[in-house]
Amino acid sequence: MMSATSVELRSPMAVLENEGGSTVCPLRWEGGFLYLLDQRRLPEEEIWLSYTNASEVSDAIRSMVVRGAPAIGITAAFGLVLEAYALQEEESDTFEEQWLKAAGLLESARPTAVNLMWAVRRMVNVFSAHKEMDGMDLPGLLETEALSIWNEDVAANLLMGRMGASLCPSNVNFLTHCNAGALATGGYGTALGVIRACKQMGKTVHIFADETRPWLQGVRLTAWELMKDEIPVTVVVDSVAATLMRQGKVSAVIVGADRIAANGDVANKIGTYSLAVLAKAHNIPFYVAAPTSTIDFNTASGEEIPIEERDASEVVSYPSFSPDIYNPVFDVTPNELVTAIITEKGVLVPPFSHSIKAVLPPLSVLQ
Amino acid sequence: MMSATSVELRSPMAVLENEGGSTVCPLRWEGGFLYLLDQRRLPEEEIWLSYTNASEVSDAIRSMVVRGAPAIGITAAFGLVLEAYALQEEESDTFEEQWLKAAGLLESARPTAVNLMWAVRRMVNVFSAHKEMDGMDLPGLLETEALSIWNEDVAANLLMGRMGASLCPSNVNFLTHCNAGALATGGYGTALGVIRACKQMGKTVHIFADETRPWLQGVRLTAWELMKDEIPVTVVVDSVAATLMRQGKVSAVIVGADRIAANGDVANKIGTYSLAVLAKAHNIPFYVAAPTSTIDFNTASGEEIPIEERDASEVVSYPSFSPDIYNPVFDVTPNELVTAIITEKGVLVPPFSHSIKAVLPPLSVLQ
Repeated sequence: MMSATSVELRSPMAVLENEGGSTVCPLRWEGGFLYLLDQRRLPEEEIWLSYTNASEVSDAIRSMVVRGAPAIGITAAFGLVLEAYALQEEESDTFEEQWLKAAGLLESARPTAVNLMWAVRRMVNVFSAHKEMDGMDLPGLLETEALSIWNEDVAANLLMGRMGASLCPSNVNFLTHCNAGALATGGYGTALGVIRACKQMGKTVHIFADETRPWLQGVRLTAWELMKDEIPVTVVVDSVAATLMRQGKVSAVIVGADRIAANGDVANKIGTYSLAVLAKAHNIPFYVAAPTSTIDFNTASGEEIPIEERDASEVVSYPSFSPDIYNPVFDVTPNELVTAIITEKGVLVPPFSHSIKAVLPPLSVLQ
Repeated sequence: MMSATSVELRSPMAVLENEGGSTVCPLRWEGGFLYLLDQRRLPEEEIWLSYTNASEVSDAIRSMVVRGAPAIGITAAFGLVLEAYALQEEESDTFEEQWLKAAGLLESARPTAVNLMWAVRRMVNVFSAHKEMDGMDLPGLLETEALSIWNEDVAANLLMGRMGASLCPSNVNFLTHCNAGALATGGYGTALGVIRACKQMGKTVHIFADETRPWLQGVRLTAWELMKDEIPVTVVVDSVAATLMRQGKVSAVIVGADRIAANGDVANKIGTYSLAVLAKAHNIPFYVAAPTSTIDFNTASGEEIPIEERDASEVVSYPSFSPDIYNPVFDVTPNELVTAIITEKGVLVPPFSHSIKAVLPPLSVLQ
């Protein structure tokens, strides 16, 4: 495999550390290798695994070494860069066939997050436009595109953070679910990006983090990354949320998204819909923070979003006891329960079918 | 310690097996020993621990070897029987002092479930009325009272079961939370008693059991005991409940209670309030099944009910990572979210401050 020199300089980590107040990132691209922080092992161990081809990267996404809609999109893009370097000495027909097969594999690694399909499609568009190019140059071009996807995600998060924070009072108690943080994105966070921005703007913030069964992203990832950045966080089991709201302890709910339909319906981690119903019953604003890459303009409503079900073993694993388990890992929140969607292009408000059209990308991107 | 002969014949187990269709019971009273099924070890191991005095029994209640409002009431009563046998050769002053101290210890083992205080008070009433009796006879009298408490609980559950089942359609999908089953009572169950009665009446029943974090009573106890009795059950993580309701898969929510205030506010396992709000938002009936021993006529509203908080280690236990945790293990559901309270004396409907008065016990019991 060819080493990509000086690429480190173009990663967004320096920007994040200087400007964003985030010290956590789920991936590294160094010396032609992709490294992923193994999120299955957090918070107990910080272990970086290295990857050299698309098939390994696809397995990493499927097995949740890396998770979070924007993060798996960026990761898949680098999976295709790795694959291009691995194939660069092949004949162009073989290159194309193998590389597109890898793209299909990565695109289907998980079904719900649209960013995965979106990022793979961006890479395929670059590939298609330049596939007549010398095989030795194409990987470099794909690498540039992957780095752009990563940089744009971080830039979008920083913008979203500032816009979201401007909606918040100077003393704010957020309730969040799952992990929509640095670990779920290029390194700053969507929902947690808004929280980081609040802190940077001098607001007093405190976070209640739902532990988020079954995978415990809230305690293992959200609490871990907020504590790294010295942002006050209290963990609760998921079913405490309603009590916190009733006690008046929650000023706003803020979550990320895995896919937003054209009408503003939001697919996100299982439990999000529950929080949205509870927030409405308690007159608490319910915010979704997501880059426009999470909006699926081709999906009319939440009913069309495929909801991943994962193995029962992620819920229970007793050697001698196997009850029937239903384990959907996402749910859909209907748009009428959403107060606002915070994107890098603006804060979208109801009616979403209207406000989402305002951030519609050029037709060429929608194909 | 004196052995209590022929007492086995008076335990409700035979009734349960013949009449109730329940094969599970959390306690046994045999040969003057109290045995408790260690609920911390279920579903992996069925281990019975034996007890010989009130202090041990108090520790068992505190550490959740046995849990469930009616079950800890019955257990505490037998704790006081054990203590009486242990003290029976003492002078009457020493007997009284030590025995009342044990009663105080048991009463304060856990704060939320009123059945605990109620059962201890019943035992203290018997003691007070007969303390001039020969120390050799008093333990037998207390034993009879404890057996009555147990038998009455089972009889109440059987009645509640039939009354609750009569409210249900012939094909019913219940959602339940925590464990309000045989393991939480004298051996039949409150919420799960209604479910057992539905099955016995030939109705088609299916249960969704919330796993119930942090202690996982739903998966470890409810699924385990329903599977023992061949009642179809599907386990979900707590935050799936809202999605099940939205999918139209839940015909009714049914839960137990740890304490019901005079106005019908219900303290129960954390997560119950959340389900009640969600049920209302989805137009699904929300039933509470509880014996009248769970009604605290001296507590005007839920605001007065003490809510136990337990140790953070019950939520997370990583050797090297200790986030701040808020771990209240009960919540209060306001009466306006409750469709009906199913008791052994009838199905109570709103306004509860009125219907609860109808089951008020004689004044002498309220002191």
